[in-house]
Amino acid sequence: MFQAFESTTTPHQGPPRLAALRAKMAEAGVDAFIVPRADAWQGEYVAPCDERLAWLTGFTGSAGFCVVLAETAGVFVDGRYRVQVKAQVADAFTPVDWPETSLRDWILAHAPEGARIAYDPWLHPPRQLKGLAPLEAAGMTLVATENLVDAVWQDRPGRPEGRAFAHPLELAGEESAAKRARLAAELRRAGEDAAILTLPDSICWLLNIRGADIPRIPILQSFAILTAEGRVQLFVAPEKVAGLDLEAEVHPPGAFLAAVEALTGTVRLDPESCPAAVAGALRATVSEGPDPCLLPKARKNAAELDGARAAHQRDAVAMVEFLAWLDVQTPPVVTEIDAAQALEGFRRATNALRDISFETISGAGPHAALPHYRVSEETNRTLREGELYLVDSGGQYVDGTTDITRTVAVGAPAREAMEAFTRVLKGMIALSRLRFPQGVGGAHIDALARAALWEAGQDFDHGTGHGVGSYLSVHEGPARISRASTVPLDPGMILSNEPGYYREGAFGIRIENLIVVREAPPLPGADPRPWRDFETLTYVPIDTRLIVRDMLSAAERDWLNAYHVQCAERVAGQLSDRAAAWIARATLAL
Amino acid sequence: MFQAFESTTTPHQGPPRLAALRAKMAEAGVDAFIVPRADAWQGEYVAPCDERLAWLTGFTGSAGFCVVLAETAGVFVDGRYRVQVKAQVADAFTPVDWPETSLRDWILAHAPEGARIAYDPWLHPPRQLKGLAPLEAAGMTLVATENLVDAVWQDRPGRPEGRAFAHPLELAGEESAAKRARLAAELRRAGEDAAILTLPDSICWLLNIRGADIPRIPILQSFAILTAEGRVQLFVAPEKVAGLDLEAEVHPPGAFLAAVEALTGTVRLDPESCPAAVAGALRATVSEGPDPCLLPKARKNAAELDGARAAHQRDAVAMVEFLAWLDVQTPPVVTEIDAAQALEGFRRATNALRDISFETISGAGPHAALPHYRVSEETNRTLREGELYLVDSGGQYVDGTTDITRTVAVGAPAREAMEAFTRVLKGMIALSRLRFPQGVGGAHIDALARAALWEAGQDFDHGTGHGVGSYLSVHEGPARISRASTVPLDPGMILSNEPGYYREGAFGIRIENLIVVREAPPLPGADPRPWRDFETLTYVPIDTRLIVRDMLSAAERDWLNAYHVQCAERVAGQLSDRAAAWIARATLAL
Repeated sequence: MFQAFESTTTPHQGPPRLAALRAKMAEAGVDAFIVPRADAWQGEYVAPCDERLAWLTGFTGSAGFCVVLAETAGVFVDGRYRVQVKAQVADAFTPVDWPETSLRDWILAHAPEGARIAYDPWLHPPRQLKGLAPLEAAGMTLVATENLVDAVWQDRPGRPEGRAFAHPLELAGEESAAKRARLAAELRRAGEDAAILTLPDSICWLLNIRGADIPRIPILQSFAILTAEGRVQLFVAPEKVAGLDLEAEVHPPGAFLAAVEALTGTVRLDPESCPAAVAGALRATVSEGPDPCLLPKARKNAAELDGARAAHQRDAVAMVEFLAWLDVQTPPVVTEIDAAQALEGFRRATNALRDISFETISGAGPHAALPHYRVSEETNRTLREGELYLVDSGGQYVDGTTDITRTVAVGAPAREAMEAFTRVLKGMIALSRLRFPQGVGGAHIDALARAALWEAGQDFDHGTGHGVGSYLSVHEGPARISRASTVPLDPGMILSNEPGYYREGAFGIRIENLIVVREAPPLPGADPRPWRDFETLTYVPIDTRLIVRDMLSAAERDWLNAYHVQCAERVAGQLSDRAAAWIARATLAL
Repeated sequence: MFQAFESTTTPHQGPPRLAALRAKMAEAGVDAFIVPRADAWQGEYVAPCDERLAWLTGFTGSAGFCVVLAETAGVFVDGRYRVQVKAQVADAFTPVDWPETSLRDWILAHAPEGARIAYDPWLHPPRQLKGLAPLEAAGMTLVATENLVDAVWQDRPGRPEGRAFAHPLELAGEESAAKRARLAAELRRAGEDAAILTLPDSICWLLNIRGADIPRIPILQSFAILTAEGRVQLFVAPEKVAGLDLEAEVHPPGAFLAAVEALTGTVRLDPESCPAAVAGALRATVSEGPDPCLLPKARKNAAELDGARAAHQRDAVAMVEFLAWLDVQTPPVVTEIDAAQALEGFRRATNALRDISFETISGAGPHAALPHYRVSEETNRTLREGELYLVDSGGQYVDGTTDITRTVAVGAPAREAMEAFTRVLKGMIALSRLRFPQGVGGAHIDALARAALWEAGQDFDHGTGHGVGSYLSVHEGPARISRASTVPLDPGMILSNEPGYYREGAFGIRIENLIVVREAPPLPGADPRPWRDFETLTYVPIDTRLIVRDMLSAAERDWLNAYHVQCAERVAGQLSDRAAAWIARATLAL
């Protein structure tokens, strides 16, 4: 199994580690040390050697940070982790509601006058440090130091040594040389001589490679410099890329800062993600701007889209087998962990699963109302009659990354849950059917996925969709379907479409498909302007037992019925008898 | 009549004036002079003495600018004015498509190396000049000078001398002292000692006065300084406010810069609207931020909303009389000007009209496809059988500002026009019926007014709505319903809801009501979060002869029928016999 369910909290180890860190801080002559969850690559998953926040505090969430002062230590976590943090950290740590309380304001309130605030410049991008500038205005000093946690961390694991491997042209769809030439031309147009690349998925995309350094995301932890002539210097332990036919000069990681220092002219640097240590080493003129790989990587080419379609078809077989299996389990026997394990089993049975694309969210009843619930041995419960069960999961296949959420009825559902489910479905269909003009961004269409809920005075507190990589990160920028994102939705971008509804303590609903932006086919009578629409990638039945039929319009029913016809057709001949019988029933026209 | 229809183009006067200006430029030792349409108050209408762009070039549009060089003179206009500018300016001027071509890029391409680019610092806010900074990087020099147009403008009209008058408490709803205390508290919270106010509608709102300096908007052209103690210094010719019981120290306009120079501490200044001349005089620490009146002015209080309702009810009587009159005119007799004059006549008959709130857009057939069409003696045409007629107009009443668009059938309409009309109506109803959570801005709901059009591959190229003042500007910030505006829609904000559709050379459609954001009444089963919805202010029948009934959902029909019941009820007993008979037919249930 990829997924583990044991509880990893070790609150009792926190206090002695905190004491050791404070002794080190005193020795270094600083009053505070900031311990973020992030590593130098600012990603969602980090290697064991970078799990500094969990090692120090016991808190294992995927985002947060700790600010250690002599007398107090604040653990900053967002709304997802308010309950979890209390269970995981010892009394020596004080949970802080973030972003309601900013790091800056908390330090201003708790650190002594004139305090020296230390941080590891490899773990913070310049944009983040800019937010701390008011501390200096208030008489404090920000001090870049070595990592003081690493200095006291006995038996810290070594850096990951995963070997990179080629991502073949038939999957990547474009030679690395062509990608580098495109980006180099863009740098030249912008008057830039080079760009610093510190995001591993950007580097993997650019060089048509993948890696094995961390779970869930097949990336190679490395840094790179791309020149305006299209050459790449790659900074990585040479043994990790040994034998690869790489179109890049390979240098050891230790040579990176000197290479940055040696750059001349104008150099692009992404202030949202580049470590401050790297930005600080630059002697050339800085041009702040987004990593040049972000947009081209997000706009998938034909080969990547073919791969995504194949991966989704394969994944649909596993999902259908799982839903058919679940349907014959009499409640209350199956637990949330049983279900997650069964699902991973069906995905493994495809013989193509490289990893799951994130920790499966498997939640029944009130657990489904926690949008980021992660089941563990401690929280595990059975699926009971009359409940909704929500499962959000995905697979990493070499040809594509999947992400799907289905909410299913266990026994007879309550009427109010059915009504909410139907409203969520209406929002999901609204985006699936949407046609929109070029230039529209996620912020502009997010409300279309909510309008049916809003009409009933209901809403959900997360974005409607995120970008998805091509055998890369399941959460990929820069486009999102969220009030905060105005990046135009361009053809080839894969996005999730996942409205939901959560009734605290009672039930949770989310329906998620992946969709791709495409050039919309022409319509008679349409304006002569470029139109976009979405192609759906995910074809797995939506539980019609949860739908209040009369709440759907004729057009919505037509969409759903046509969708279900496709669901059955695309997996036909690839299912077990049980699953074949199940999908025949599950896709009956509504 | 407030509105005039004569053609005001005088292309032949341009060349000698241009020659005089160039001689003055040579004398001043500068290579370029920028002539914006804007005056020092950055508003939509300017006084005759500030019509520098029209005086120089002949171009009378409401936005644009001219850059005069020794050999060439570019007249920059946006999409609304591409046709008009060609008819209005002499060959000595070159029309330039703006914003496609930026002022900056055009100057870089046309001005000589090392050019000295002159501008009047009273007419440009700092944010605008910031866009020209690359000229200095390219070796040119930006030079603030006296206004060189004024220096050569013989018999330039004098500054307006309109007398200001009190806006009574029963209409304003809040004492000036209370407004000043609220704003002063905000300045103190922000650590600011004063704010510079240069927007006349802000100053009028703050002091509960109105003015008579320019057409269409009842403002007093003035400047002010508000201190963190709530005191106001007002800079205006004393005779314009003589006899008013003003809670402000009055100083002559000439004393403004010295008063700005004398400010100490931290001073708020709005870089979007404050003249650069004023910003440059400031010696105190600058805090760049929005004019502090903008948001409180936009959030109308109960008295202002009562006034708006009364003004809209009065205006509805005039509109209904007009539509009833129009309906009995046999085409093709009535012209666009006849119709605009008749409408203004019905508004005047209310005996409460202070001004029209903008130049009436009265367009038939293909003219209606120009969203900002302004009829003149030259363009005037009759309304013909089978055409659509679009009329966008409004009134200034002491209790409120109105703005309404109706599109009506002249004879039997074409099917495709009816289908487009119905889609526009669906969008307009979608916003009218919308319920949304606190924090949502115009950018997030704009698409809801377009979704029905988008489904057919149709769209319109303007925002869906703008803010509206309270007996002030009909276009008021900061909130808008547009892809570009994320300002949260707060209770009390009056906005227009005006989707449209324009088929070039054929027909144009727009349906516009004013709506107010309010706290939505509670719903059973709703989430415990703050909800908003809209109250409709405009109640004037929508032409049901243009509706394809089956394209409306049951909920949309219910909304329209209930709306029409209200339309009839609200004007009952106030109509002529003709109008009473007309509205009975026009509001029959669909």
